[in-house]
Amino acid sequence: MKEESATWGHAPPKLMTMAMLPIAVTLIAHPLLPLLLPDNILNLLPDLPPQPTFPALQASIGFSFLSFLGIVWTVPSIAQPFADKGLRGRDLCKPGGRESGPWVPECMGLPLACWYIALMMLFIPFPFSHMFTPRKGEEVGRETFPQAELSLYLSSLLSLFTATLLGFLDDLFDIRWRHKLPIPLIASVPMLLVYYSEGGLTSVVLPRIADKWLSAAGLHVGRVVNLGPLYYLYLILVPTFTTNAINILAGINGVEAIQALVIAASILLNDLLFLPIWPRSFLIALGGVGNPHEGRLLHWAAGEVVKRHLMSSYFMMPLVGGILGFLWHNWYPARAFPGDTFCYFTGMAFSAVAIQGHFSKTLILFFIPQIFNFILSCPQIFHIVPCPRHRLPKYSEATDTLSPSVAEFTKPLTWPAIIILRIFEALRLVRLTREVEHAAYNGKGSTKQVSTRSGRIISCTNMTILNFLLVNFGPMRESSLCTLLGAIQVGGSLVAFGVRYGMASWVYGGDRR
Amino acid sequence: MKEESATWGHAPPKLMTMAMLPIAVTLIAHPLLPLLLPDNILNLLPDLPPQPTFPALQASIGFSFLSFLGIVWTVPSIAQPFADKGLRGRDLCKPGGRESGPWVPECMGLPLACWYIALMMLFIPFPFSHMFTPRKGEEVGRETFPQAELSLYLSSLLSLFTATLLGFLDDLFDIRWRHKLPIPLIASVPMLLVYYSEGGLTSVVLPRIADKWLSAAGLHVGRVVNLGPLYYLYLILVPTFTTNAINILAGINGVEAIQALVIAASILLNDLLFLPIWPRSFLIALGGVGNPHEGRLLHWAAGEVVKRHLMSSYFMMPLVGGILGFLWHNWYPARAFPGDTFCYFTGMAFSAVAIQGHFSKTLILFFIPQIFNFILSCPQIFHIVPCPRHRLPKYSEATDTLSPSVAEFTKPLTWPAIIILRIFEALRLVRLTREVEHAAYNGKGSTKQVSTRSGRIISCTNMTILNFLLVNFGPMRESSLCTLLGAIQVGGSLVAFGVRYGMASWVYGGDRR
Repeated sequence: MKEESATWGHAPPKLMTMAMLPIAVTLIAHPLLPLLLPDNILNLLPDLPPQPTFPALQASIGFSFLSFLGIVWTVPSIAQPFADKGLRGRDLCKPGGRESGPWVPECMGLPLACWYIALMMLFIPFPFSHMFTPRKGEEVGRETFPQAELSLYLSSLLSLFTATLLGFLDDLFDIRWRHKLPIPLIASVPMLLVYYSEGGLTSVVLPRIADKWLSAAGLHVGRVVNLGPLYYLYLILVPTFTTNAINILAGINGVEAIQALVIAASILLNDLLFLPIWPRSFLIALGGVGNPHEGRLLHWAAGEVVKRHLMSSYFMMPLVGGILGFLWHNWYPARAFPGDTFCYFTGMAFSAVAIQGHFSKTLILFFIPQIFNFILSCPQIFHIVPCPRHRLPKYSEATDTLSPSVAEFTKPLTWPAIIILRIFEALRLVRLTREVEHAAYNGKGSTKQVSTRSGRIISCTNMTILNFLLVNFGPMRESSLCTLLGAIQVGGSLVAFGVRYGMASWVYGGDRR
Repeated sequence: MKEESATWGHAPPKLMTMAMLPIAVTLIAHPLLPLLLPDNILNLLPDLPPQPTFPALQASIGFSFLSFLGIVWTVPSIAQPFADKGLRGRDLCKPGGRESGPWVPECMGLPLACWYIALMMLFIPFPFSHMFTPRKGEEVGRETFPQAELSLYLSSLLSLFTATLLGFLDDLFDIRWRHKLPIPLIASVPMLLVYYSEGGLTSVVLPRIADKWLSAAGLHVGRVVNLGPLYYLYLILVPTFTTNAINILAGINGVEAIQALVIAASILLNDLLFLPIWPRSFLIALGGVGNPHEGRLLHWAAGEVVKRHLMSSYFMMPLVGGILGFLWHNWYPARAFPGDTFCYFTGMAFSAVAIQGHFSKTLILFFIPQIFNFILSCPQIFHIVPCPRHRLPKYSEATDTLSPSVAEFTKPLTWPAIIILRIFEALRLVRLTREVEHAAYNGKGSTKQVSTRSGRIISCTNMTILNFLLVNFGPMRESSLCTLLGAIQVGGSLVAFGVRYGMASWVYGGDRR
């Protein structure tokens, strides 16, 4: 079994490793020097570069290099034992397909998660490093140590662990849906308690227009509405959404990883925009990002918002590195599959930083393609339109391309199904096949005909974003489809930034964070 | 394969479940009532028992019932999928043994760990429940919330997660020793950082006699010595020790669980002794436990020590319940094996509470049988005396008993080996077999003879506590041996309590915590 076209990871890049390792070590060690060496030795060192403004952020870049290298080197060495335990799958969009496609090790999100969590555990002391060299007269103790900040890190790591373990068990044992359901709820208890302990902001700012409407309806709730326990319900739903969103948009080489990469990079970019490192003119040129009336700039001095976005970037930096390392093996032709572990783990990482950093609504904006995919899928998920077992695009060995897979309708369709199909067709979301009756010279006959406006619908392309792309852009290679989806994810993030920084100030007015 | 004498868990007790569930729910719900119901409804409820002094402790008892029931019911239902993934082992001390003994599912410590961690996550809010009904004028925020206490819980759970994941991966993939080594180190970073943030006590109190000796040698260090970073090194070694100690003393049905049970119960008993619930006369009758000069009683008011031991008991209570539930399936004849997961997980739980509760030295006292077992094993572990691959007691099908297994010496022994064997023999730790030359009527011959003081040593019983017990108490049934080891563990704990409360005040004098 194993010999038969099994491919366990690509070879790791030796030269790149040799180049990256010393850079990583330098980036991490540099901010540690003042802590480890006494002043008189430090003064002897010739021309040491000055300490960075954000020492922990610099170390974080070093950790992201380590995260990249760790996963690049781990996958090939652990693929075999994983495959031996049944953690492997056929690559379906390759010659042979479901029957004899190449074996690829599954669940390679686990080494990524383990590396990442281990690195983050080692990283935790860095943001607190100023506490290790107390100034004269200061004493480190429960009074002076920023305990609240520490519990943010600890509870985020706890949630990541829960997601990883759950994902791994799911990959191993295919846990039933109803058994999985309560787990994100349990996993979010520590995070919510920490959120509560932090002051537990549960109010939302209403858009000006909503306030106007509500006032017109006689409900004078004001611009700031305290949702109370409802807000915690929303906070529980965020991880449930993010952990499943990527999992649903899956199936071709690299597609889970490219989504996660773009989302992580978008969060990171958003975090960096909040750091006081940009010239004011640049922010204003970005179209109101640095609008001084937006309140954000004015709060820089307070530090709280900066701190939260710093923490978020500490988490995202090594994640970007790790996902890039994973893509090394997962990019077409894939030599490693992510498994549920990858989707749960990355999804939980996004939720954790967004909840703790108070930007969960911005986060959801970064999931535009996933939300589109989910809405598109709804008619099939809820069985209004018949849904085949697999909805992956169809691989054609002759052309080495993917084309949309279809759902064949053997039974007559219900009228809601027909309405949905017609609307989706008009919006170019699906392509329908119709049976057109016509008079042939030897009597009655029928021909299948694509995309005519009349006749009985006998099949439709499956309702996923991948099939939607193939319908509109025509058949293409697997790697092209993955790249296209990555581009769309980038486009989604651009829209998200536009909404967050452009429209938001227009919709909400000035007084928001 | 599966049909052949496979036994997946004992049947769970239905009647006991029906009796325990309502008790558990009552114990947990009772302290929640004042939080969930408004005062006017509470007043309407007839004769509600008054709120307990320690509401979270009462809830913890309820959680320990849930922990018991959870594991009792989970094992039979998940044993099959675990076994299918190769997580099963032959029960060696049963008819058939290594070749055809009954299959038993392995790694059943994982469901225990998962249940336990999930319950503990749900439990976390309980000790902070007083924060959810702030008194008038009080506001919950990062200033008033006991963040330091919260990070103790979070970091302990993080360490538990690390141990569980490591144990599970080890059970699945048999991780190499050198790959496992750094993991407890990484896992302890969050715990150590929290320890540091708490004020980071790194000083030890020297026994009076040591102080006297050091003073005599001209070293006036005083009674309280600050070990600094060395103390952190010690703290890292504690989890390394506890996670491996139970793993080494293993091999017969129930033996890992009984050790863990006695240790957990001892920690719990020690915790409860620190709570201000005992009449003073009782503590004094216990022989100085409540010695008012010991300092402990005087500190009750301060609350810090009580708080730490309360936290420890919150962790130990559900652990005792969970281990009892596991014993339901693991007791002779075992229908579930613990796996490394169980040993790592329980070991880490002990370390976590002891480090966070500042009683790591007391904890080590509870490991007397494990330390004895390790010292006894040393000559074989370090290959001074030849060591066979398996040192498990030998099963005799005819009598259904276990007898000591032996290491046969094919090559001549080195002189250190001979010295060690003679000393161990004199201490009745091993039984030796000697070849005695004697003149037989038809010339020279040799007879194997047990325990004669002369002649070449040709074999010795293996150096483990289990074989030691069989040497001294004679062959016995597997369940008797396990019970005997449990009794010895209890004896060890009694000695530990004696040392901790009797000798300690004598050795250290009064001024200690």
